[in-house]
Amino acid sequence: MDTTIIAVVAVASIVTAGLTTAIGCIGPALGEGRAVSSALTSLAQQPDAAATITRTLFIGLAMVESVAIYCFVISMILIFANPFWNQVIVQAGGK
Amino acid sequence: MDTTIIAVVAVASIVTAGLTTAIGCIGPALGEGRAVSSALTSLAQQPDAAATITRTLFIGLAMVESVAIYCFVISMILIFANPFWNQVIVQAGGK
Amino acid sequence: MDTTIIAVVAVASIVTAGLTTAIGCIGPALGEGRAVSSALTSLAQQPDAAATITRTLFIGLAMVESVAIYCFVISMILIFANPFWNQVIVQAGGK
Amino acid sequence: MDTTIIAVVAVASIVTAGLTTAIGCIGPALGEGRAVSSALTSLAQQPDAAATITRTLFIGLAMVESVAIYCFVISMILIFANPFWNQVIVQAGGK
Amino acid sequence: MDTTIIAVVAVASIVTAGLTTAIGCIGPALGEGRAVSSALTSLAQQPDAAATITRTLFIGLAMVESVAIYCFVISMILIFANPFWNQVIVQAGGK
Amino acid sequence: MDTTIIAVVAVASIVTAGLTTAIGCIGPALGEGRAVSSALTSLAQQPDAAATITRTLFIGLAMVESVAIYCFVISMILIFANPFWNQVIVQAGGK
Amino acid sequence: MDTTIIAVVAVASIVTAGLTTAIGCIGPALGEGRAVSSALTSLAQQPDAAATITRTLFIGLAMVESVAIYCFVISMILIFANPFWNQVIVQAGGK
Amino acid sequence: MDTTIIAVVAVASIVTAGLTTAIGCIGPALGEGRAVSSALTSLAQQPDAAATITRTLFIGLAMVESVAIYCFVISMILIFANPFWNQVIVQAGGK
Amino acid sequence: MDTTIIAVVAVASIVTAGLTTAIGCIGPALGEGRAVSSALTSLAQQPDAAATITRTLFIGLAMVESVAIYCFVISMILIFANPFWNQVIVQAGGK
Amino acid sequence: MDTTIIAVVAVASIVTAGLTTAIGCIGPALGEGRAVSSALTSLAQQPDAAATITRTLFIGLAMVESVAIYCFVISMILIFANPFWNQVIVQAGGK
Amino acid sequence: MDTTIIAVVAVASIVTAGLTTAIGCIGPALGEGRAVSSALTSLAQQPDAAATITRTLFIGLAMVESVAIYCFVISMILIFANPFWNQVIVQAGGK
Amino acid sequence: MDTTIIAVVAVASIVTAGLTTAIGCIGPALGEGRAVSSALTSLAQQPDAAATITRTLFIGLAMVESVAIYCFVISMILIFANPFWNQVIVQAGGK
Amino acid sequence: MDTTIIAVVAVASIVTAGLTTAIGCIGPALGEGRAVSSALTSLAQQPDAAATITRTLFIGLAMVESVAIYCFVISMILIFANPFWNQVIVQAGGK
Amino acid sequence: MDTTIIAVVAVASIVTAGLTTAIGCIGPALGEGRAVSSALTSLAQQPDAAATITRTLFIGLAMVESVAIYCFVISMILIFANPFWNQVIVQAGGK
Repeated sequence: MDTTIIAVVAVASIVTAGLTTAIGCIGPALGEGRAVSSALTSLAQQPDAAATITRTLFIGLAMVESVAIYCFVISMILIFANPFWNQVIVQAGGK
Repeated sequence: MDTTIIAVVAVASIVTAGLTTAIGCIGPALGEGRAVSSALTSLAQQPDAAATITRTLFIGLAMVESVAIYCFVISMILIFANPFWNQVIVQAGGK
Repeated sequence: MDTTIIAVVAVASIVTAGLTTAIGCIGPALGEGRAVSSALTSLAQQPDAAATITRTLFIGLAMVESVAIYCFVISMILIFANPFWNQVIVQAGGK
Repeated sequence: MDTTIIAVVAVASIVTAGLTTAIGCIGPALGEGRAVSSALTSLAQQPDAAATITRTLFIGLAMVESVAIYCFVISMILIFANPFWNQVIVQAGGK
Repeated sequence: MDTTIIAVVAVASIVTAGLTTAIGCIGPALGEGRAVSSALTSLAQQPDAAATITRTLFIGLAMVESVAIYCFVISMILIFANPFWNQVIVQAGGK
Repeated sequence: MDTTIIAVVAVASIVTAGLTTAIGCIGPALGEGRAVSSALTSLAQQPDAAATITRTLFIGLAMVESVAIYCFVISMILIFANPFWNQVIVQAGGK
Repeated sequence: MDTTIIAVVAVASIVTAGLTTAIGCIGPALGEGRAVSSALTSLAQQPDAAATITRTLFIGLAMVESVAIYCFVISMILIFANPFWNQVIVQAGGK
Repeated sequence: MDTTIIAVVAVASIVTAGLTTAIGCIGPALGEGRAVSSALTSLAQQPDAAATITRTLFIGLAMVESVAIYCFVISMILIFANPFWNQVIVQAGGK
Repeated sequence: MDTTIIAVVAVASIVTAGLTTAIGCIGPALGEGRAVSSALTSLAQQPDAAATITRTLFIGLAMVESVAIYCFVISMILIFANPFWNQVIVQAGGK
Repeated sequence: MDTTIIAVVAVASIVTAGLTTAIGCIGPALGEGRAVSSALTSLAQQPDAAATITRTLFIGLAMVESVAIYCFVISMILIFANPFWNQVIVQAGGK
Repeated sequence: MDTTIIAVVAVASIVTAGLTTAIGCIGPALGEGRAVSSALTSLAQQPDAAATITRTLFIGLAMVESVAIYCFVISMILIFANPFWNQVIVQAGGK
Repeated sequence: MDTTIIAVVAVASIVTAGLTTAIGCIGPALGEGRAVSSALTSLAQQPDAAATITRTLFIGLAMVESVAIYCFVISMILIFANPFWNQVIVQAGGK
Repeated sequence: MDTTIIAVVAVASIVTAGLTTAIGCIGPALGEGRAVSSALTSLAQQPDAAATITRTLFIGLAMVESVAIYCFVISMILIFANPFWNQVIVQAGGK
Repeated sequence: MDTTIIAVVAVASIVTAGLTTAIGCIGPALGEGRAVSSALTSLAQQPDAAATITRTLFIGLAMVESVAIYCFVISMILIFANPFWNQVIVQAGGK
């Protein structure tokens, strides 16, 4: 029965790790696309403000990217530092 | 039967932790993208108000980011400080 | 059978706590993004009204944030002060 | 069998309490975001009418918030004053 | 078997009560948000008509709110004055 | 078997009564919100036609509200005057 | 087995009657809201044509309302004049 | 087994009759609402063409309504002139 | 077993006949509504071209209506001239 | 077992034939509605180009209609010239 | 068991053939409708460029139509030249 | 058991081949429709740039079409050069 | 049991390979369509900048196409260089 | 039982690897399409700012592309460096 548990936890970790990054990347990609799009329109309209616009753009992109990174971090934790997996492996090994 | 329970609770925690951050990041990413987008358009239209605009933008981004952080916190609690998991481990160990 | 019940209630609490915050954060994030976006556009259009605009913005953001906090509170109650879980633990222990 | 019933009713209450607030918060958050957004645009367009605009905004936000509070109240009733749960507990205890 | 029926009817009532209010609140919240939004835009455009606009707004909000209240009433009936639940309790008690 | 049938019919009635009002309220709420929104914009644009506009608005709102009331009536019939429930109760009692 | 059939047909009738009206009301409510909305905008733009506009509006609303009434009629037939239910009751009684 | 077949065919007919009208009414209601909406806008813009506009509107509404009537006819055939039901009843009776 | 097959084929035919017309009517109704809507706007803009516009409108409506009629024809074939049903009846009778 | 196979293949053919036409008609109906709609707007804007516009419209409608006809042809093949059905009938008869 | 396999492969082929064309036709129909629509608007705006516009339109329509034909070809292959079906028939016959 | 495996792999290949092309054609068709639509509008606005516009259009269409061809290629590989199918056939034959 | 595993892994690989390319092609096709569309509009507006516009367009298309190619690569790996499939074949052969 | 576990983990890895890239590519493709689209419009409007616009575009595209690459990396890890797969293989081999 131990190996079944290992399989179930492994499957859950694999599927969740993948879907978390996949779903979590839709929003940031669209949000960044929108921000970049506005930046370009603004640059065309007011080239003199290029310094302020690009600086604000990069700060904004960093904020949006941080959301995508939360998802990536969760995925990495689930793949490489999964406390539930470790517990299950120990449980299975110690028995 | 104890190991089955451990597996079920572990799977639920893994899947929920992933999906919470994944789903919860769609909204903030889109909202921040929109805010940054407006900030850039506004900067291009009224470069003189850059100080007020960027200050308001950062406060607004912080508010939206806080919503994403709620989700991230829930995920972290479910992975690293899950009271149900602790209870189940104790139950399984003490028996 | 007691441990099965514990597992079922624990799983329901974990999944619900996560999804409540995740789903409940989509709306507030989009709403706040929209409000911030309008604030920035308004600031660019009428810099003289900055005081009124930012004050109204903060009250509005507080109202929207309150909706997200309702969801966060429900999640926290389900994780750390769950009356059904307490009842089930007592039931399982007393038996 | 009594404990099974307790578990089923507890799970239904937990899940419903969470989802009611989560789903019910999407609408109010978007509606309030829209209202605040229009208020800010209006303030920028007609700063002289600030008193009327903010008064109307607050009444409107209160109306929309009331809808979110209906959902929060239902959730709270289901968690802390659930008549079905009480009946089931009595039934289980008296037997 | 009586207790099973009690559990099933209780679960159906709990879930329905929650979802009715949750789903039924999406529409009114969006509708009210739209109405308030237009009211604010109108006030900014024609401050002299403030009396007529706010009066019409309140009547309109009352109409939309009534729809949300239908849902809230159904939920309350299902929780506190549920004829099916009463029948089932009587059935279970009399047997 | 009679009690099972009672439970099934009761559950169907409860769930349908709730969902009918919940789903059926989305449309009217949005429709009324749109109508009120246009009324307010029209009032701001043409305050002299206030009498005609508000009269037409109220007739229109009544038409839309009637659709919501159809759903509410169906829900009330299913809860308090359900012919199938009566038949099943009679069937169960006479047996 | 007869009572099971009665339950199944009753459940199908109840659920269908509710959902038919619920789903069928979304379209008419939105359509009417749009029509009323345009009528109000038109009245504000051309108050002199009020007679023609309101007459055309009422005919149009009647057409759209007729669609909602089709659904309501189907629901009423399924609840109070259901040929399948009558056949099943006869079948069950005659046996 | 005959009664089971009767029940299955009856349930399929009931559910299909309801859903056909319900789903089939969404399109026509929205389409008619749009047509009426344009008619009113057109009347306000060109009151002199009222005769042509209303005549074209009525022909158009009749075309759209005909689509809704197709669905209603199918529902009525399934309830009151269902060849499959007749066949099954005969089959069941003759046996 | 023959009667089971009859029931299954009958149910499939009933459900498909209904859904085909229901789903197939959404598109044509919206398309016709759009066409009529444009016709009315065009008439208001260019009353002199009424003859050409209405002639083109009727040809266009006929084309769109033909799509709805395809679905209605399929439904009618499935109800009244279903080759699979005939085959099954013959099969069941000859056996 | 042969009759079961006949039933399964018949059901699959019936359901697929209906859904193919139903789903496949949504696109063409909307596309044609859009094309007709543009034609009418264009006619109102440039009545002198009526000949070119209507000719292009008819070619375009034919192209879009051809897509709907593909679906109708597939449905007809599945109902009246289904090679799988013929094979199964032969198989069942020859055995 | 051979006949069951034949049935399963036949059902899969029938359903897939239908759905492939049905789903695959939504996109091309909408795309062509949009292209035709733009062509008509362009013709009304610039009648002198009719030759270039219609030529480009026909090339574009051919490209879009080719996508629909890919789906139609797949459906035809699955119905009339299905290698899996042939293999299964041979397998069933040779055994 | 070999024949069952053959059936399962055949069914998976058939369904996937169909759906891949069907789903994968929605995007390219819409994208090409949009590109053609813009090309026609551009031609009407700037007939002098016809050469550059049509050349860019054809390159763009080729890029979009390539995406549809990826899907078509995958479908063709799955039908006519499926390595898993070959392996399974060999496995089944050699045994 | 080995052959069952082979079938399961083969089916998973087939379905995933198809869906990955199918789903993954929707986004790039729409994105490229949008980019091409803007390029054509821009060319019509500023023919003098044709060189810069087409160069930027091609770089942008390459970036978007790269996303579609990621999906195509994953599909190809799953069909022709699938490590899990190789492992399973080895496992099955060596046993 | 070991081989079953291998199959389950392999299937989960295959499906997740495919879907992660497929779903995760929708957002970036649309976002990049939007960014490129705005860049082209901006170039046409302000050709003099071409240097700033293209530089900002490339930085923005890189940010959005990075999100797509997160998904691709997760897929590659799941296919070629899957720790759960390695653990399961070791487990199966060592036993």
